[in-house]
Amino acid sequence: MEKRAELYRGKAKSVYATEDEHRFVLHFRNDTSAFDGERVEQLERKGEVNNKFNHFIMQKLEQAGIPTQMDQLLSDTECVVKKLDMIPVECVVRNIAAGSLCRRLGVEEGTALTPPTFELFLKNDALHDPMVNESLCESLGYATQAQLATMKSLTYKVNDVLKALFADGDLLLVDYKLEFGVDHQGNIVLGDEFSPDGCRLWDANTREKLDKDRFRQGLGGVVDAYIEVAKRIGLTL
Amino acid sequence: MEKRAELYRGKAKSVYATEDEHRFVLHFRNDTSAFDGERVEQLERKGEVNNKFNHFIMQKLEQAGIPTQMDQLLSDTECVVKKLDMIPVECVVRNIAAGSLCRRLGVEEGTALTPPTFELFLKNDALHDPMVNESLCESLGYATQAQLATMKSLTYKVNDVLKALFADGDLLLVDYKLEFGVDHQGNIVLGDEFSPDGCRLWDANTREKLDKDRFRQGLGGVVDAYIEVAKRIGLTL
Repeated sequence: MEKRAELYRGKAKSVYATEDEHRFVLHFRNDTSAFDGERVEQLERKGEVNNKFNHFIMQKLEQAGIPTQMDQLLSDTECVVKKLDMIPVECVVRNIAAGSLCRRLGVEEGTALTPPTFELFLKNDALHDPMVNESLCESLGYATQAQLATMKSLTYKVNDVLKALFADGDLLLVDYKLEFGVDHQGNIVLGDEFSPDGCRLWDANTREKLDKDRFRQGLGGVVDAYIEVAKRIGLTL
Repeated sequence: MEKRAELYRGKAKSVYATEDEHRFVLHFRNDTSAFDGERVEQLERKGEVNNKFNHFIMQKLEQAGIPTQMDQLLSDTECVVKKLDMIPVECVVRNIAAGSLCRRLGVEEGTALTPPTFELFLKNDALHDPMVNESLCESLGYATQAQLATMKSLTYKVNDVLKALFADGDLLLVDYKLEFGVDHQGNIVLGDEFSPDGCRLWDANTREKLDKDRFRQGLGGVVDAYIEVAKRIGLTL
């Protein structure tokens, strides 16, 4: 697979064209950002760790019947993915209250959410990723009702698979965001990445944070925590 | 009906107990507030205008088969209502983009929303009435899924009735919020009020604002606009 022009540079990943019109290369950089990109730092090995972590998780999800964008690893920091037209809405599932939910609704961090909640946010840094809902998505043309129903169903299915996977490593999957896209056949497919950059993972016993909140809150040991999480679920980095 | 102890003092209305345990008195004050109560002014005759406007609209909705809290007018500024346990969530329908939607999502004011959108907001001034959704309402105990489904269905039914009523008066019903409660038999009933304080109404030809945005934006002529709206839909004040 030959890496050609950079098509898009996100906050932590870059997307490149290839000689195959239905394939992209994702390059995971060491850039780590928070607060809508207001704070950016380089963390050594983070690109490699997230690339391999994401590949490992996407394989697990494929095995569980969830269609993903993943094709194969290309290098330590790169993978080949199927081309998707991304839907500009993030799907968030929360098993335990943390982060923005607590600030927005005055809920105490650590409160169990039963059933797990499902929220939609418009991907728009300038507007600070505002919360939306299915009705707004439909009327403003972000996604169709049919697409949203599939995204919601797949997001909950991911929850069943990953809650169990992390529980086996004594980890609580607190919350996570997923992004979906449409492939050239019109199917809704899981895209973007799943890594500790886009989810919250706590030690099940101590509730120590082992995700990007370590960066947001200046706790240090960010990449070491990601490597520890990987090890606990069977991936040695 | 005898007015007894004040049970609750809202930003524009007060609620009083009566000798009937299933009836309250609502007193519409002249207080007019905006920006989560940060700005409050007295506007002459506003209590009377909103009380009679609300009674007129609730009668129209009852005639269309929508259960409402309204019992009867008691005085110029008071009405008797059925007691409800209020659900702490506002239902918002938008036919045309305006106000917070435009700021939140970068949509141009005046954009037609097709189909009309439906949003839920938690009633909490300290948290600035944050947006929620059906999943959050269920998991955080604000309302059940069955209650939310009924609220949504009634809110859209109100839209059909009131869009037509205002259209006959050459007015556009831009958006509005409704609040529901549960009566002593467990039924979901429309509560609170429907007045130009809680909706946006524009002249259909000039798009002149004839609602509380006149107060928020310091345009003046607030109560005169409300009286004009009332006159156009057949209520002389």
